[in-house]
Amino acid sequence: MTTAHEYAQTNADRFRELYKELVRIPSISTLPEHAGDVQRAAEWLAEQMTLAGFQSAEVIKMPEGRHPLVLGEWNGAGPDAPTVLIYCHYDVQPAVVEDGWLTPPFEPVEKDGRIYARGTTDSKLHVSAQLRACESLLQTGGAPVNLKLILEGEEESGSENINAFVEQHGDRLRADVCIISDGTILDETQPSLVYALRGIATMELHVEGPSQDLHSGHFGGSVHNPLQALAEIIAKLHDENGTVTVPGFYDDVLPEDPDERAELVQANMWTEREWNNVARAPQPWGERDYNIHERVGLRPTLEINGLTGGFTGPGFKTVLPQKAMAKISCRLVAKQNPTRIYELIRDYIAQITPPTVKATLIPLEPGAEAAVLGRHTRAMAAAADAYEKGWGKRPIFERAGGSIPITYTFQKVADEVVIIGFGYKTGQAHGPNENAHVHSLHRGIDTAIHFLQAIGGQG
Amino acid sequence: MTTAHEYAQTNADRFRELYKELVRIPSISTLPEHAGDVQRAAEWLAEQMTLAGFQSAEVIKMPEGRHPLVLGEWNGAGPDAPTVLIYCHYDVQPAVVEDGWLTPPFEPVEKDGRIYARGTTDSKLHVSAQLRACESLLQTGGAPVNLKLILEGEEESGSENINAFVEQHGDRLRADVCIISDGTILDETQPSLVYALRGIATMELHVEGPSQDLHSGHFGGSVHNPLQALAEIIAKLHDENGTVTVPGFYDDVLPEDPDERAELVQANMWTEREWNNVARAPQPWGERDYNIHERVGLRPTLEINGLTGGFTGPGFKTVLPQKAMAKISCRLVAKQNPTRIYELIRDYIAQITPPTVKATLIPLEPGAEAAVLGRHTRAMAAAADAYEKGWGKRPIFERAGGSIPITYTFQKVADEVVIIGFGYKTGQAHGPNENAHVHSLHRGIDTAIHFLQAIGGQG
Repeated sequence: MTTAHEYAQTNADRFRELYKELVRIPSISTLPEHAGDVQRAAEWLAEQMTLAGFQSAEVIKMPEGRHPLVLGEWNGAGPDAPTVLIYCHYDVQPAVVEDGWLTPPFEPVEKDGRIYARGTTDSKLHVSAQLRACESLLQTGGAPVNLKLILEGEEESGSENINAFVEQHGDRLRADVCIISDGTILDETQPSLVYALRGIATMELHVEGPSQDLHSGHFGGSVHNPLQALAEIIAKLHDENGTVTVPGFYDDVLPEDPDERAELVQANMWTEREWNNVARAPQPWGERDYNIHERVGLRPTLEINGLTGGFTGPGFKTVLPQKAMAKISCRLVAKQNPTRIYELIRDYIAQITPPTVKATLIPLEPGAEAAVLGRHTRAMAAAADAYEKGWGKRPIFERAGGSIPITYTFQKVADEVVIIGFGYKTGQAHGPNENAHVHSLHRGIDTAIHFLQAIGGQG
Repeated sequence: MTTAHEYAQTNADRFRELYKELVRIPSISTLPEHAGDVQRAAEWLAEQMTLAGFQSAEVIKMPEGRHPLVLGEWNGAGPDAPTVLIYCHYDVQPAVVEDGWLTPPFEPVEKDGRIYARGTTDSKLHVSAQLRACESLLQTGGAPVNLKLILEGEEESGSENINAFVEQHGDRLRADVCIISDGTILDETQPSLVYALRGIATMELHVEGPSQDLHSGHFGGSVHNPLQALAEIIAKLHDENGTVTVPGFYDDVLPEDPDERAELVQANMWTEREWNNVARAPQPWGERDYNIHERVGLRPTLEINGLTGGFTGPGFKTVLPQKAMAKISCRLVAKQNPTRIYELIRDYIAQITPPTVKATLIPLEPGAEAAVLGRHTRAMAAAADAYEKGWGKRPIFERAGGSIPITYTFQKVADEVVIIGFGYKTGQAHGPNENAHVHSLHRGIDTAIHFLQAIGGQG
């Protein structure tokens, strides 16, 4: 009888083409004009689940203007077998050629062993690998675990609905183990297991000055320029060491564990290398008392993600603008709460804003707390073994700087949560020329099969 | 025989319609896609000059990609009569409905005694008033002075060519008196004469950090965010009193004349009223030791005219961007030189930029020094008399905050230079809903006729 691994090998080319087919659907959840594409991707995925052998596959409608979940279920392993809930997201970030793409963002182009397109690494790689791992098991005699495959369409636009959905359907989704399949491992020669993720809070800062745009000659020197005022406010949000100056910002950051920091030195070696390969800023920046891995994984941030105001087209317009805007996000750690962080920043900005302008801070998305998983659970051990088989090397532990807000919610319905990513940090998630290695798809499928087999007692 | 003033009255409706016809041509000199419109406006004006009675009217081509001058000449007063050179500009600033226009920017709409459209006040009001004043004289027996009417098409986009043109054609343009017809008077009940204008220097500040846009989760905390770095640099360009901190910035600002400052108190009363009517920021801002009129007219500024970087569309993108940009302009006074000011800012920014980012300051346009005219010349006296007849009230003296870079150049070819503006400060030059009073056109024509008559000894 064919094994799941043999099935995956035989179907490798077909799996790759189906992965590209999914990538071609521009399922951008942040832009309303792409809502139809998100819907189309959901329907395509439900159809693929059915073809893969799931007993049911449902496109679950969310409120008007939002994007569906896709839920596939297979309970053929019986009531005594463990249940594994697998989560991925199928929506993607916006992408336009002008951001520096060398190829069209939604036409996958294969070159030198990589596939380039928006979503190749974040996160259609994971959707494809997990779905095809399930198919390989289901088409070769069935899986040793009951399967629930849940795919989200709003991860890049605030995950407005999945948290409530999971909490409301806790019985249906209850699982022994939850796999969150997203994110990256250190390198193609070094898999890694993420045991902590940062949370996130997003907001917009609006600064308003005069009642309308003014001529900078007629009024310049007598009106506090909102662009200048915005810059002055932003400049006060960090001190010279890169530490956030907002009072109370670090109150819920827990004291560090010296053993953990000693272990993180290994991950930092990789992080520094990645920094030099990918970030390549003139110099690293940030809090002196923490290495780069810790700055990104262990410490919270306050980041400016966008600035706009006045005239920025070609040529010059001597305008003294009415308003200016900054998009701000915080990456959160430990017990920091997104609402509380928003309130602290709002209050601090109110305090430092001079009476010559009006500043308003608006919270944008519900945000998420950080998620810390155990490093020594059964699922972690199974994941480490699966990676060792899939990638040929034992993974090391790391903290991730990004946010997978759903982790926190899944901890409520599953006994153990593990994060399994197949992307690489060179994959340019959210940036131009996003890409994934072709081998990541195939190693990912293998690793996912090994993991499910291990949880099912076939490890 | 019909007098020039009678002719102007008889032709008032026709003059107004021709003014609207000119306003309808979107002669935006800063946007390359409007080059054809600028050309069309120039040709229309040359034709109108010929119809008005000028002996010659020429559209003078400028280098590829730039915009023509229009020069009309009438030497019928003879070699012993004085020669008056009249300058206006016929190009306009960009305007799009999205900036807050209540009516289409290039379709003049008359409402409550005002005409709304881009260019109505800056500066097609002046082009129209001066051209129709000339016509009124030329069609009623001729003018008492020789006339040279020069119209520029690049005033809003750096005046790249007119300075060289005027210097090269000094003999052709030589005049006893030069009228620069542009700008505003204090109020419809109070005309004013500008005797000083600020110069200008424009530049772009580019801040670059990492080699590409990054995921703020993967790198946030370890890379100096270029948006934050830009804000930090901008925040260091002023102190808490609103004074520019760039070393040497004030070196060429002359010590103030106490008599002049005492006189400016009268103009400040108007400026404060205008500030409360138009600017309406939460509070005035700027250098404590100067009143609002002085902050705008007597003191130099460093203004941020535009800021851009990162993701600023709807929704949120957790990007740590590669770069950020600010448009900066300085209004200059006294002996401040635009090139020197650029160099001082460039050197200061180089000094305060941290090693974690790269900052580049690029000069944008040639800029212009401030222009100070005499307050007690023959032309000023003639202008004061002309305003008194046209507006029914003696003008007061004021310093203007804006820049008319050409003033400096005309001081080289004319014995006296006078600035005669017919707009009001509520006219929203450069802003949305730009407008001019209908009476400003007709009073402007009358005032311009009186001025030319006075210079020609018929005052």
